[in-house]
Amino acid sequence: MTTTQADFLRALQTAIDSKTKPVGALGRIEQLAARIARIQHALKPVAETCRLTIFAGDHGMACHGVSAYPQDVTRQMVLNFLSGGAAANVFARTLGVDVQVIDCGVAGEPIRAPALRSCRIAAGTENAIERPAMDAGQCQAALANGRMIGLEGEHHAACFGEMGIGNTSSASLIAAKLLGAPVGDLVGRGTGLEPDGVSRKRALLENAALRTPDRLTATDALIEYGGFEIATMAGAMTSAAEAGKIVIVDGFIATVAALCARDLSPGCEQNFIYAHRSAEAGHTKVLEALGAEPLLDLDMRLGEGTGALLAWPLVKAAAAMLREMASFDSAGVSGPA
Amino acid sequence: MTTTQADFLRALQTAIDSKTKPVGALGRIEQLAARIARIQHALKPVAETCRLTIFAGDHGMACHGVSAYPQDVTRQMVLNFLSGGAAANVFARTLGVDVQVIDCGVAGEPIRAPALRSCRIAAGTENAIERPAMDAGQCQAALANGRMIGLEGEHHAACFGEMGIGNTSSASLIAAKLLGAPVGDLVGRGTGLEPDGVSRKRALLENAALRTPDRLTATDALIEYGGFEIATMAGAMTSAAEAGKIVIVDGFIATVAALCARDLSPGCEQNFIYAHRSAEAGHTKVLEALGAEPLLDLDMRLGEGTGALLAWPLVKAAAAMLREMASFDSAGVSGPA
Repeated sequence: MTTTQADFLRALQTAIDSKTKPVGALGRIEQLAARIARIQHALKPVAETCRLTIFAGDHGMACHGVSAYPQDVTRQMVLNFLSGGAAANVFARTLGVDVQVIDCGVAGEPIRAPALRSCRIAAGTENAIERPAMDAGQCQAALANGRMIGLEGEHHAACFGEMGIGNTSSASLIAAKLLGAPVGDLVGRGTGLEPDGVSRKRALLENAALRTPDRLTATDALIEYGGFEIATMAGAMTSAAEAGKIVIVDGFIATVAALCARDLSPGCEQNFIYAHRSAEAGHTKVLEALGAEPLLDLDMRLGEGTGALLAWPLVKAAAAMLREMASFDSAGVSGPA
Repeated sequence: MTTTQADFLRALQTAIDSKTKPVGALGRIEQLAARIARIQHALKPVAETCRLTIFAGDHGMACHGVSAYPQDVTRQMVLNFLSGGAAANVFARTLGVDVQVIDCGVAGEPIRAPALRSCRIAAGTENAIERPAMDAGQCQAALANGRMIGLEGEHHAACFGEMGIGNTSSASLIAAKLLGAPVGDLVGRGTGLEPDGVSRKRALLENAALRTPDRLTATDALIEYGGFEIATMAGAMTSAAEAGKIVIVDGFIATVAALCARDLSPGCEQNFIYAHRSAEAGHTKVLEALGAEPLLDLDMRLGEGTGALLAWPLVKAAAAMLREMASFDSAGVSGPA
């Protein structure tokens, strides 16, 4: 740590402790404020605006029934996002957050809708149970799309969400290969499989994991196990962080994208704030690997950025605390007796 | 349960399950939405507006050093609330929540400020370590003030906060007498006592508890151990609930006021939503007695309504989910395969 950094961190702690409250009485909000201050290199950080970007894509392995829902639901939910009817839309509206939707590779013909942005790589990935989900060129294209998206906009914070039937399977495989962990430990119910469905999903993913070495780089894991939406999101996380934005990381799939982003651009994870602990089984293991302790624990497992959105008011409040609260001196309040 | 109630609850669960998300995927937000729907007897509940009321009062027993801060801080913080510099003000601003401040009995001369509402009972309570904090008439007056305040305003939700040096001591004693529990189990650091300070506080409160029977009614507990601000808040909680408002319960002291409100007006607790688990030691015990599982756990222990405020966006989002989200039918989204 340089002297300048040490001075900054000392000044930051002094600023937090001088606010009109007992030392530490705002608990994790104080730690969050400190994180935001470090992200922005500012003792009076600003977090007033936020945008949600939802990345959608389909997965060839959905044909194996790894999800409780049919593949069509990805496309149907994209239309639902565009008409404002999904949970993410509703939450975003109550919080004053803008929403954009990106087609990273939804199956079927391209959806024609003015509000939908196309970053399509293909009409869904290949069947990753049997062969690579995408080729190296497709992966680089998705990452590049994401890096472009992450740089856009002047908002202080970015929530990233996803939609893609089959994408908990993809995320479990990617996490397993980045962590060198058995994929069986990272398999959950996804959209709501019953126990026998989870068993079948586990067997399929264990089989798919055998195709490749125990450990892969993020790029190779994305090529092998896909998700155009996961690759695009990972790219967006790296560039949004490098541009100084606060990146609010949603649930299981977004946290796996964050794991990829850290591998692709080490250090970018300094800008990540982990929103919530998902009910999806693998999430806690990935959070542990990232040393992350999320802000919320509401037993949610929807994706779409819904958890990230619900953490946004905490981020906003934490930055405002540091920027706007009076100090004992400025307010003429006595310290401890 | 009447048939009408059973029909309503069935219709409510059907409405939640028909939303475009896997059944249960919004976890505690779904349960919260159901609670709000029951409060409002509406399948499309509305929670768009919220007000924070901060009740301030002083405690005679502060002279024993039960707090890390001098008694003057109550008055100084009231002025800080009025000039918008406290944590509660800053959080409320980021959330679009109005704030009102009530002087329920701050020590010294009445504070003259146009924005401060006076519901003063006296210039602080008596020293409750040695004698009753207030007389029966004062308690009834504080409860009546609160009932009046709880009825006011057209906002859908009410956050109630407090400020009063010494009031964790008051709250610990009241909770002990309502629960029939040893007060020693309910004593914590308050504004930040060191371990020896906590030991002294515990001994003082155990002594104060000996003055009265093991169990007291809410009214008697308030008379004996005070808090004009706690009594006024308890009154406000009863009438706000009876008027159909959502009452968002803050931390330890507010939860003890909620315990009193339940005793004063059984059933009103149906309208209570518990915001957060405070780091103050006694809070979890009082929550357990109320069967409450709060929404947030952020290691906060400030009071002022700060925890309640941070839960408000969850309440707002939950109601909007039920009111605005598309159904599988309306959005043309397929159900499970």
